[in-house]
Amino acid sequence: MDKLTIAIDAMGCDLGPAAAVEGAAMAMKEFPGVEPVLFGHEDVLREEVKKFGEMKIIHAATVIEPSESPTLAFRRKKDSSIVMGLKYVKEGNASGFVSAGSTGALLTGATVIIGRKPGIERPALGTVLPSRTGYTLLMDCGANMDCKPSYLMQFGQMGSDYAKKCMGIENPRVGLINVGSEEEKGNSVVKEAYTLLKGAGINFIGNIEGREILSGDCDVAVCDGFTGNVLLKFTEGFAKSMMGMVKEELLSTTISKIGAFLAKGAFKRLKKRFDYREVGGAPFLGLNHIVIKAHGSSDALAIKNAIRQCVIYSQQ
Amino acid sequence: MDKLTIAIDAMGCDLGPAAAVEGAAMAMKEFPGVEPVLFGHEDVLREEVKKFGEMKIIHAATVIEPSESPTLAFRRKKDSSIVMGLKYVKEGNASGFVSAGSTGALLTGATVIIGRKPGIERPALGTVLPSRTGYTLLMDCGANMDCKPSYLMQFGQMGSDYAKKCMGIENPRVGLINVGSEEEKGNSVVKEAYTLLKGAGINFIGNIEGREILSGDCDVAVCDGFTGNVLLKFTEGFAKSMMGMVKEELLSTTISKIGAFLAKGAFKRLKKRFDYREVGGAPFLGLNHIVIKAHGSSDALAIKNAIRQCVIYSQQ
Repeated sequence: MDKLTIAIDAMGCDLGPAAAVEGAAMAMKEFPGVEPVLFGHEDVLREEVKKFGEMKIIHAATVIEPSESPTLAFRRKKDSSIVMGLKYVKEGNASGFVSAGSTGALLTGATVIIGRKPGIERPALGTVLPSRTGYTLLMDCGANMDCKPSYLMQFGQMGSDYAKKCMGIENPRVGLINVGSEEEKGNSVVKEAYTLLKGAGINFIGNIEGREILSGDCDVAVCDGFTGNVLLKFTEGFAKSMMGMVKEELLSTTISKIGAFLAKGAFKRLKKRFDYREVGGAPFLGLNHIVIKAHGSSDALAIKNAIRQCVIYSQQ
Repeated sequence: MDKLTIAIDAMGCDLGPAAAVEGAAMAMKEFPGVEPVLFGHEDVLREEVKKFGEMKIIHAATVIEPSESPTLAFRRKKDSSIVMGLKYVKEGNASGFVSAGSTGALLTGATVIIGRKPGIERPALGTVLPSRTGYTLLMDCGANMDCKPSYLMQFGQMGSDYAKKCMGIENPRVGLINVGSEEEKGNSVVKEAYTLLKGAGINFIGNIEGREILSGDCDVAVCDGFTGNVLLKFTEGFAKSMMGMVKEELLSTTISKIGAFLAKGAFKRLKKRFDYREVGGAPFLGLNHIVIKAHGSSDALAIKNAIRQCVIYSQQ
């Protein structure tokens, strides 16, 4: 593999800088050409890096907290790990950026600093969700609240491109999330988006209803960022709530308790299928370089996989 | 209990008229004052009614199929079970209407024939979903694709009223589905709806994110009909997909197979918690009389419970 530099916000994980540094070390081992550059507090990072050998560190004095206003923080904290990392990528020093920090600051910062690809109206945040048969990329998951039909068309194009490059799908099936399968269904935005998507030069399979999003019927599911964000968080909540109910019922009688004990391997495998860490992070697409938003609770494995996403995307 | 007449579309169930007739008979037994009036093909219904004793039948020569255009079918098929049943309610002969037939035709027909309550801008379809601790009423689930902020406010008010009357909740907590908890979050419609809901005279608890919809944190979750419909169908698909994955993993080794066998009581109880038949149907609110849209695949139990919803709502 050729040399590939990836900038990493080492201060964004809830678990602290250790997770980001270990993730970077894991990525170097898995992809020998990768050179991570860590952004964050120099003294803290140097201590962590020691455990794994050499890594380039660039000192960033501050951190943007998720509780801060993204626009204000991004403007004021020029010396934060997010702003400095994004500038480093913008200046051509790295191919991509990984951060588990403030989503708002990352999206605002990436759009302003790195800039949109020519022709792209709005960058969008994708999330890779486990489907019945593999994975579905949900686009947009929260970067754009009020969408024009042309944005949705471009979400389909960007999603298709990502699915080809990073999910290994040759001819990704792109569906438009809607309330029915017929072309005339939906609100005013999706009706027009339908027509645009038909002429978008991608494998547009038409409208998909809620139940088809994770059924394995499509590889890329397109919607506005409001719907996508509600769906994404609903998925998290619903999976948790269902697993809670399963647990409650399993523990309610002695026989089912024994049953649950014997079946615990199956539940472990199931949990792995829903483990976001295996996927990495959410790609923020439509910029001149790839930016990956890793989950706040990312551990080293999740960060390593987020770096992997940058590597695979950048090599295509 | 006082005498209470409920009109029933006896032709709407996928299982055929037998399910509707048996459901009506079950309701008569459970609520001695209830008098169902069945709309559908007289000869067919008379055969079914025979099994349970006496019931009033009004002949409706045609049925609106779910595949037909709702607006066209509703205008042309004046002799259909849906149109005749709705007219019967409109004329004051019955307190409510239950149908498992075409959703589109029922919503269009009910709005035009029965008419909106004074002051209500748009009627809305609610769905009662099992939450972590009880039930959540999701409003709107598909009647209104493009919503003004004032519609959302009224969905909150109508939902709160229904939750009080039919779900036995004294002071229902009404949440606005959004992408964050802060007031300034969301798209342009929900931002304005937030302000309106604060002054709506209900127990408005503010924005709720996707993960809180079924967490038990709110009793009524408000959104536009596009988002609600996608969420509702997503829930169906996701629950099915998750249960499919659970099954796959449980059957993948002999030990977990034994475990699953021992735990099958727990899975049965879980299935019951997700059984829409226990809830009845989706209330279509904001009209001068209550209309319940029962699931197309409703059996007798589901129809009985849909009639129960009309009974409880009408008695308050």
